[in-house]
Amino acid sequence: MGEVTCDITMSLDGFVAGPDQGLADPLGRGAERLHRWMFEEPEANAEAIEKITSARAYIMGRNMFGPGRGAWDLEWNGWWGEEPPYHAPVFVLTHHPRDSVTMKGGTTFEFVTDGIEAALARAREAADGADVAICGGASTVGQYLAAGLIDELRLHVAPITLGAGERLFEGAGDLRLEQTAVSGTGLVSHLTLRRARG
Amino acid sequence: MGEVTCDITMSLDGFVAGPDQGLADPLGRGAERLHRWMFEEPEANAEAIEKITSARAYIMGRNMFGPGRGAWDLEWNGWWGEEPPYHAPVFVLTHHPRDSVTMKGGTTFEFVTDGIEAALARAREAADGADVAICGGASTVGQYLAAGLIDELRLHVAPITLGAGERLFEGAGDLRLEQTAVSGTGLVSHLTLRRARG
Repeated sequence: MGEVTCDITMSLDGFVAGPDQGLADPLGRGAERLHRWMFEEPEANAEAIEKITSARAYIMGRNMFGPGRGAWDLEWNGWWGEEPPYHAPVFVLTHHPRDSVTMKGGTTFEFVTDGIEAALARAREAADGADVAICGGASTVGQYLAAGLIDELRLHVAPITLGAGERLFEGAGDLRLEQTAVSGTGLVSHLTLRRARG
Repeated sequence: MGEVTCDITMSLDGFVAGPDQGLADPLGRGAERLHRWMFEEPEANAEAIEKITSARAYIMGRNMFGPGRGAWDLEWNGWWGEEPPYHAPVFVLTHHPRDSVTMKGGTTFEFVTDGIEAALARAREAADGADVAICGGASTVGQYLAAGLIDELRLHVAPITLGAGERLFEGAGDLRLEQTAVSGTGLVSHLTLRRARG
């Protein structure tokens, strides 16, 4: 069976998104600096970047799909334009049912209203033995970590401070992680953390 | 002239000390796990450990010298017994004047009541061209970072979450740090961060 993975980039002060997220600023103020390592150092970080899109099904919180709350705006099909980079089923956690949306390039958005475990079961089935990746945001990743459902957390730490925003490990208990690898460049440290066995 | 350095160990969720610090638990609950890398992997981390004690003068907050507040208990000479590991002058930031204390092995504790810049000036003079190290805790390091007075921050990230305690980067603005090295083992990631030039 495939693994459940998660790639997420965090600032030194623990934020994965900045303050004041919204339509004009989906990551929150200042947070585009988190991801400089992907855009300015793609070759030095090629191995880490490749892993981010190696899953065959994805799970994300509603916040990562769109800025709306409550009932759906059916004109909104995500932040990524006509052809999103997933090329696979993406399960969106929400309290509001919606029919699935098929995009160009093989991405489908499926809306799951019965919780993180149900979403994972559906994603595992869709992945058909390959990995399932938890995309974010902070709250979604935190819930899967707290439930012990992530096998490998690939934490990318950017050497910046944001001062405010969404904290990845807000209120985390003992997550029982083991560090299996560390590497980095000028713009990021890659920490590989696996769920402790036993 | 020597540099101003700081070695400090932080959890994944940003804490350098746990909750409920006190005489019985100087680092706070659970925080002894932060420093496992020094005691359980001394050889793998030899280079990092050696740097921690390479300065010729040290600065620490009062919290790191003792659990007391207000007027001094003159019987208390720090957490480290008769022969502290510094073997050099240690400048303790406090609002309460006290005569200096000479310990075995060349450590002297000097008490500075006129602020972080005055303490740094005295430490630089004592270091006589060698490095000055900022020892902690979170508040002291945060003040020196905010003032742009630390040349090299050697941040040791332990792969654990503490959930509560003293945050290193609480309320930090843009610290303008550049990452110059990353390495690690199973129990720690070593991030070297230098003050950006210009």
